[in-house]
Amino acid sequence: MNNLPSGWFTEEFQNEGTAFSLKIKEKLHDEKSEYQHIEIYSTETFGNLMVIDGCVMLTERDNFLYHEMMTHPALFTHANPEKVVVIGGGDCGTLKEVLKHPGVKEAWQVEIDELVTRMAERYFPDLCSSNQDPRANFFFGDGIKWMSDVVPGSIDVIIVDSTDPVGPAEGLFAVDFYRNCMLALKEGGILVQQSESPLLHSKTIIKSVHQDMKKAGFDQVHTLPFPQPVYPTGWWSATMASKQKPLTCFREEDAQQKPFVTQYYNKDIHRGALAVPEFMKVDLDLD
Amino acid sequence: MNNLPSGWFTEEFQNEGTAFSLKIKEKLHDEKSEYQHIEIYSTETFGNLMVIDGCVMLTERDNFLYHEMMTHPALFTHANPEKVVVIGGGDCGTLKEVLKHPGVKEAWQVEIDELVTRMAERYFPDLCSSNQDPRANFFFGDGIKWMSDVVPGSIDVIIVDSTDPVGPAEGLFAVDFYRNCMLALKEGGILVQQSESPLLHSKTIIKSVHQDMKKAGFDQVHTLPFPQPVYPTGWWSATMASKQKPLTCFREEDAQQKPFVTQYYNKDIHRGALAVPEFMKVDLDLD
Repeated sequence: MNNLPSGWFTEEFQNEGTAFSLKIKEKLHDEKSEYQHIEIYSTETFGNLMVIDGCVMLTERDNFLYHEMMTHPALFTHANPEKVVVIGGGDCGTLKEVLKHPGVKEAWQVEIDELVTRMAERYFPDLCSSNQDPRANFFFGDGIKWMSDVVPGSIDVIIVDSTDPVGPAEGLFAVDFYRNCMLALKEGGILVQQSESPLLHSKTIIKSVHQDMKKAGFDQVHTLPFPQPVYPTGWWSATMASKQKPLTCFREEDAQQKPFVTQYYNKDIHRGALAVPEFMKVDLDLD
Repeated sequence: MNNLPSGWFTEEFQNEGTAFSLKIKEKLHDEKSEYQHIEIYSTETFGNLMVIDGCVMLTERDNFLYHEMMTHPALFTHANPEKVVVIGGGDCGTLKEVLKHPGVKEAWQVEIDELVTRMAERYFPDLCSSNQDPRANFFFGDGIKWMSDVVPGSIDVIIVDSTDPVGPAEGLFAVDFYRNCMLALKEGGILVQQSESPLLHSKTIIKSVHQDMKKAGFDQVHTLPFPQPVYPTGWWSATMASKQKPLTCFREEDAQQKPFVTQYYNKDIHRGALAVPEFMKVDLDLD
């Protein structure tokens, strides 16, 4: 049985019987906020790494996959997204992708833990490079409460960029929260949420997300898988929901001619991510 | 710095600065063949695991992703595949997928190490469940030599299901081998090869594979990414090549109506896997 020598950061996915490790150069920061324990490492090959409560949140090298896929499919599915709200997303990577869309007039990042953003500004400056954009707005506080207080029918796209559905993020995977999202959305609005691993969680978390979103009145729900190497199984997903708007149609021509650079996303990748693996059709009772 | 206790199998990807671990129930087998060191473990959550020379080869739980994506895109791109040859693939999983196609009249598995197949028969019986099919043929020996001796213009699809391009498999990632494949293929024939991780190897191995296949006379080359949790980054690829036949067209209607069950592959997944991520267009000098 091999074991890693010191000099590695290892995240053990206890329930899944797997673990993922990154070779570390040094620990750059270690701080406990009111909400969680945040560590920053410099890795040998994946750039800087943020760890929250022992879980890998992101690395400089591969976060583009997650942030692009949390953002662009939803924004190119909406007819004309002008007001976009990110719930969570304290590292500012999703906000940065949102602000690439010239049609967006107002973007909010509603993160419970201000320290995550302060750490991102210091250790992931590229993700924060649009934070001075005049369209960017920051609120540090409870996203669940924020969503229950927001003006009804005022938001075009809500992106729930949260940690796993345990601890502070648990209430973001719940019917009550989705009902408030439904109320907050304008006609034609879209909700998208990170929804864990297709291989590990189709029958559990992803299925619950579908059921709860439907209970909250979202008739259309669709899960888009994408690669994300530093998360369990290296395979992750975003689940989109809308009241009536079909989620398998999107502004393909606009996506094709997007006036900004991406590293993963393009029109064909978007179309491809809409494909549902055979086992997920079974697990989610589709067809 | 966390470290895993005993009871885990860990593969350290030394050049990549990452490691992947699976929780182990017990070691079932440990044997050295003429070519390599083969270990079989029972894992807590991924079923049985085969390890060759310290590298994870496959688990019962997730091998369907790899085997389906090595097989069905190539076979549904070919107009009428009747004779299919697997080079490597000793675990018989690719052969099993090939034999699902009723039009296949003759399938060969050319594996250098017979012990891999014996271990698969014992510890991965599901993968070997088509080994008694009268269309299945087995040759245990050097795939490079086999391909140089085969009757020219006799094969419809060649699937190179090999280990990494070091050690015994190195000669399978080379212009000379591809030239022999080109000679062995019938008109309209297709070659497909496992081609490592899009994130890690686009600029290196995948780019070399493209260049070498083109040098060998394959005008059309296309890389299809797919998830594969137990391989580095959890994201893997197959590279298809043909003399002239465009690889972005395939028998979509036949794929839609496939007369067999798959767990991942379907027509939309195939179409989706043809999408090229933005960074790969840059790394491979496409567009």
